[in-house]
This record gives sequence, C-alpha cells and structure tokens, in this order.
Amino acid sequence: MRIAVVAGDGIGTEVVAEGLKVLDAVLPGVETTAYDLGAARYHRTGEVFPDSVRDELAQHDAILLGAVGDPSVPPGVLERGLLLKLRFDFDQYVNLRPSRLWPGTSGPLGGVKPGEIDFVVVREGTEGLYTGAGGGLHRGTPAEIATEESLNTRHGVERVIRDAFARAGKRARRKVTMVHKTNVLTHAGGLWARTFAEVAKEFPDIATEYQHVDAAAMFMVTNPQRYDVIVTDNLFGDILTDIAAAVTGGIGLAASGCINPTRAFPSMFEPVHGSAPDIAGQGKADPVAAILSVALCLEHLGHPDEARKIEEAVATELSGRTGEPIRTAEVGDRVSVLVA
Amino acid sequence: MRIAVVAGDGIGTEVVAEGLKVLDAVLPGVETTAYDLGAARYHRTGEVFPDSVRDELAQHDAILLGAVGDPSVPPGVLERGLLLKLRFDFDQYVNLRPSRLWPGTSGPLGGVKPGEIDFVVVREGTEGLYTGAGGGLHRGTPAEIATEESLNTRHGVERVIRDAFARAGKRARRKVTMVHKTNVLTHAGGLWARTFAEVAKEFPDIATEYQHVDAAAMFMVTNPQRYDVIVTDNLFGDILTDIAAAVTGGIGLAASGCINPTRAFPSMFEPVHGSAPDIAGQGKADPVAAILSVALCLEHLGHPDEARKIEEAVATELSGRTGEPIRTAEVGDRVSVLVA
Ligand SMILES: CC(C)[C@H](C(=O)O)[C@@H](O)C(=O)O
Ligand SMILES: CC(C)[C@H](C(=O)O)[C@@H](O)C(=O)O
Repeated sequence: MRIAVVAGDGIGTEVVAEGLKVLDAVLPGVETTAYDLGAARYHRTGEVFPDSVRDELAQHDAILLGAVGDPSVPPGVLERGLLLKLRFDFDQYVNLRPSRLWPGTSGPLGGVKPGEIDFVVVREGTEGLYTGAGGGLHRGTPAEIATEESLNTRHGVERVIRDAFARAGKRARRKVTMVHKTNVLTHAGGLWARTFAEVAKEFPDIATEYQHVDAAAMFMVTNPQRYDVIVTDNLFGDILTDIAAAVTGGIGLAASGCINPTRAFPSMFEPVHGSAPDIAGQGKADPVAAILSVALCLEHLGHPDEARKIEEAVATELSGRTGEPIRTAEVGDRVSVLVA
Repeated sequence: MRIAVVAGDGIGTEVVAEGLKVLDAVLPGVETTAYDLGAARYHRTGEVFPDSVRDELAQHDAILLGAVGDPSVPPGVLERGLLLKLRFDFDQYVNLRPSRLWPGTSGPLGGVKPGEIDFVVVREGTEGLYTGAGGGLHRGTPAEIATEESLNTRHGVERVIRDAFARAGKRARRKVTMVHKTNVLTHAGGLWARTFAEVAKEFPDIATEYQHVDAAAMFMVTNPQRYDVIVTDNLFGDILTDIAAAVTGGIGLAASGCINPTRAFPSMFEPVHGSAPDIAGQGKADPVAAILSVALCLEHLGHPDEARKIEEAVATELSGRTGEPIRTAEVGDRVSVLVA
C-alpha cells in the first residue's frame, strides 16, 4: 500500500502530521511519500501541479491531502489547477462526505442530540458546473457577459447514483435522497430524475425521496436527522456538505473522500476545512477531520476494521473533551494510543 | 394604487386572505383585483399564464401572490411558466428576502437570541442559471447529455449590486457581503467580483466582504448575526434564503419581494413558503409571511409608515404566541386590529 501525502499549506501540514501518526499506529509500515504542492510551492516556483508530479501521484493507491490555499494566491489558481484537476484527472466521481454529530459534541442546533445526525452525502465529483466550461465577452465594458456551463452525462450521473444506492444498502436505514433543482434546471434535472428512477429499480429494498436543493438546505438545519444517504450534483453537494458540517459542529470535524471506486486511479482523502492561515503555526488546529480522512482512506483501501478503530478512538477523544483549547499534537497522540 | 392578487393554490388562498385583511386595515381603499392562476387553473383549463392575463397584470402597481403549485403538476410547468415568467417578463431583478429572528420566536439555533439575526438577501432575479438556457441530446440513451447555462451580464450584475449597496446605506450596520463561487465559477465569478469592487467605490462608507457560497451557507448556520446585506446570484440566493428562513424559525415567517426598482413593471410580493397541500383547507397555516409580504409591498410603493406598522404588529403577534396551534384567520384578525 503506497500513500502519497500532500500536506499543503497553513494548518494542512499540522493536521496531516497527526493523521499520519494515527495511520502508523493503526496499521504500521504503510509507505508514504510526501509531495510538495500548494500555495508555498506556487510562490516559490510558479508551479501549481506539474505533469510529472501527477504521473507520480498516479502510481499511488491513495492520496492524503491536508489543505492547500492562501489568500495571496489569486482565486481559482490552486482550486482549478490542483484540487479540481486531481478530481478530474483521476476521475474521482464520488465525492464522499459523511456527517455525524459525534458523541461528546454539540452542534449549533438546540434540539439535536449526539448520534441523531448520521448521514453521508455522495456528491458527484467530475461533472456539472465544475468543468470550467463557459466564457465571456467584452470584458471590462458595459457590454460584458459571462457564462458558466453545467455539463452532465448519463454516464456520470448514473454511476454516482448507483454508488449512492450501494452505500445505502450497507447502512441501517437504507434510504437515498436525491437532491437537485428539477423545477428550474429542467434539462439537467430531467436527466438526474430519470436516471435516479431507473437505478432505484435495481435496489427495490432501498427507500427513495427527492428534494429540491433549497428545501434540502432548509431541512439540513431544521431536520438533519431525516437523512441517510444524499446523492446530488457537484455544486449542490459543495453547498450542502458545508451546511452539514456546520450542523454537526463545524468543519474541524468533517472528513471527505474524492473517490474513484474503480481504483483505476488513486482516490484522495482530505479534511473539508481549508488551510486557515489565521491559526496556522500555532499548534491549535483540530486534526480530527484529517484523522477521520485517514479512516475513510483505509475503508476505501480495504481495511474496514482499522477504519472502525479510528472512528471509535475519535468518538472517545471527542467524548473526553472538556472545552479546553485543543493542542493539535496531543489529539494525535491520544488517538494513536487508542488505536494502537 | 392598484394591486393584483394571485392567491394561487393550497394555503396560498388562505394566507393571502389575511394579507388583504391587514392591507385593508392599515391602508383602507386600495383597489385589488383577483387573478386565478396556478395548479387549479392549469388542471381546469390547461392554461398556465395566458398573455392576456400578463398584459392585465402589467397594468397594476404590484402583485400579491400566495403560493402556486401542487404535486399533481409536472415539475417546472408552473415554476417556469408562471413564477419565473413573471420575474423575467416584469424584469424583477431584485429578489428581496429579509431575514429576522423575530421577538417571541426561537429558531433552531441554540445560542441565538431574537433580534440578533437581522439581514436582507438581495438575490439577483433575472439572470444566472434561471434563464432556461441549456439543452440535451440522446435523451433516454446511455449517450444522453444535458446542459444548463448560467448567463450573466454586466448590466444585470451591476444593477443588482448597486441596489444592495443602496439598501445597505439605509441600514444601521452599512455592510454588504457578496456571495459567489469565484474560485470555481471563474467566468461569472470574475464578472461579479470586478463589478462588486467597482460599485463599492461609489459607496465609500459601506463596508464590504466576499464569501464563497459554501462558506456563506456554513456561516448562515454558525454565525448568521454577522450579515447585514447579502448580494448574490439567482441560484445561490435561492439556496441561501432557504437556510436563512430555517435559522429564523422557518418559512412560515419569511416574506419576499420580486422587485423591479424602476417601477416600469409591477413588482411581486409573496411568502417564501409553498402551497403546502398537506395542511391546505384546515385553517392552520401561518399567514405571517403573507402579511409581511404586504409590508414589503407597501414599502416598495412608497408607504413606509404603513409597512413599519405591519412589522410592529407582527412583532407583537409573535411575542404573544404561547405555542398553541395557530388559526390562520385569527392571526389576520389580531394583526389587523393592531395596525388599524
Ligand atoms: C476549494 C473548492 C474548489 C472545493 C469545491 O468547491 O469543491 C471545496 O469547497 C470543497 O468543497 O472541496
Ligand atoms: C419555485 C421556484 C421556481 C423558486 C425559485 O427557485 O426561485 C422558489 O424556490 C423561490 O425561492 O422563490
């Protein structure tokens, strides 16, 4: 098993160190190779993501990423040039984002108790508005126009919907909620709705429902308990998973995987949070999201027992918290002891 | 002053009746004309929105809408054929959605007190992904593709951003937050960002900030107190305002205006909620959102004192609620007495 590690910028490096500590404790001897990508490299060399690095990453079983980005880099450079390029080049069509209100934590919702929120968002990762299609004319003049195009294929929609049903089949509640905006985006919405209905027939024991994205955004706040598996398009998934992170106690705890289920290319696992330059270097970032990303990675690579161990250790860690400020390395130490 | 009334379907008719009761109490003698549009008419006659009706509506100063829609109508028919057609034909480019945590109410957020949330979303209403642009090929085959196109013009972006700044100038905190996804939607995001920066120069005493839509969706839950005026595109506004409704106690209280500030065409005012067929006909829908829509309408038509009166009466009504089930007509009666 060979894992490429892109620690990245800001707190990325700090939290990834703890993720690797835990990985080594739960499954000693995994070969990891560090790759220097992100804002720091961009400023130093002008390079975002050389093809040679991409070819090397492609030789790995998975990629662990901390966080890349810095306000000093123009918007879009690292997102399009690195993060999205990875998702597209490695055909990571399942962008997986589990949401749990963990024991010992309390989210912002007054009436919700730990354990009551437990769902996973299967966000499409390679299509929709994320392809970069679009353009502009007459830039900087009163006549300027700009377009963005959402591209959707039956191929892309069907495979991610099927993945969502398969995941629901392994969960207790066995329910898939499809989220789109079929009443306005009738072209893409029609494709999603028809494909969802057809794939659902292959899974007769899985319950289904459909919600418009605006309604889902609302229910995510008023009744997140209702969800089991949500499947949705790239942009809707981006927004919904941040709401999900918010209601489950913030992005400090949210892990994600950009997964190519075929394993033809490496999948990538990363905390949902960014590089947080404001708290970088102070050893106070919460590494739990990075540690949970390691669990997702191990699950994907066929080590479900080790993944469960990490999740249980995280539950213990979070239950034991007293509201004292977090020390990044101490969290990693405690979780490592628990999984060893 | 001539107001067209489209009560619509389900609870639409029930809540609009209370809105009109309050209108008559606060400003007696306004001429109102009822128009029959919505799911019921569609089923009866096959018509969604005849041109003749549109031409009649155009002769009014404003439109009050209850809610249209029913699960028996295919998705998109009434949305595209009526609601969005009104917004586009009447160039209602400011989709205004105030969000307040009213006295006497408690939203789902544990730590937030009434009065602490008070912002307004200025959602662009005539561009973006709502134009219907896009299409598909090879429908129903494995080769199917579908596209949606977001169309954005400097003209459209500039006028709505300027409107947001003007509104911020009349508020206490004087701050505008622009929300987009400039790191991924670089074409349209660039247009929005550059236009925002330029218009901001005309308003040197208004504070500005920018947030990506996913971050804004999160802050809407973790820290909605931070917002004053938010300006954003059509689809982002759709999603964010439903989160805003959720954190301020649900769509039962959320009012909105589809406004053409030039008054070349009538503006439309409506509750954010839908026709709620599940509770229709039972006299238990909350008419507050419809009543607050009347206030927005009066504000737009140059009757700010009457608008304030309605808002104060709603505050009193909500403060006096004891958790007993609501009776639609009694709410309208109480508010009418207060504003008379
Ligand atoms: C950084 C950005 C490109 C990315 C996205 O929009 O997908 C991020 O928000 C995420 O959710 O992973
Ligand atoms: C019904 C639908 C077309 C509409 C929209 O998407 O704008 C609604 O959700 C709204 O927010 O007014």
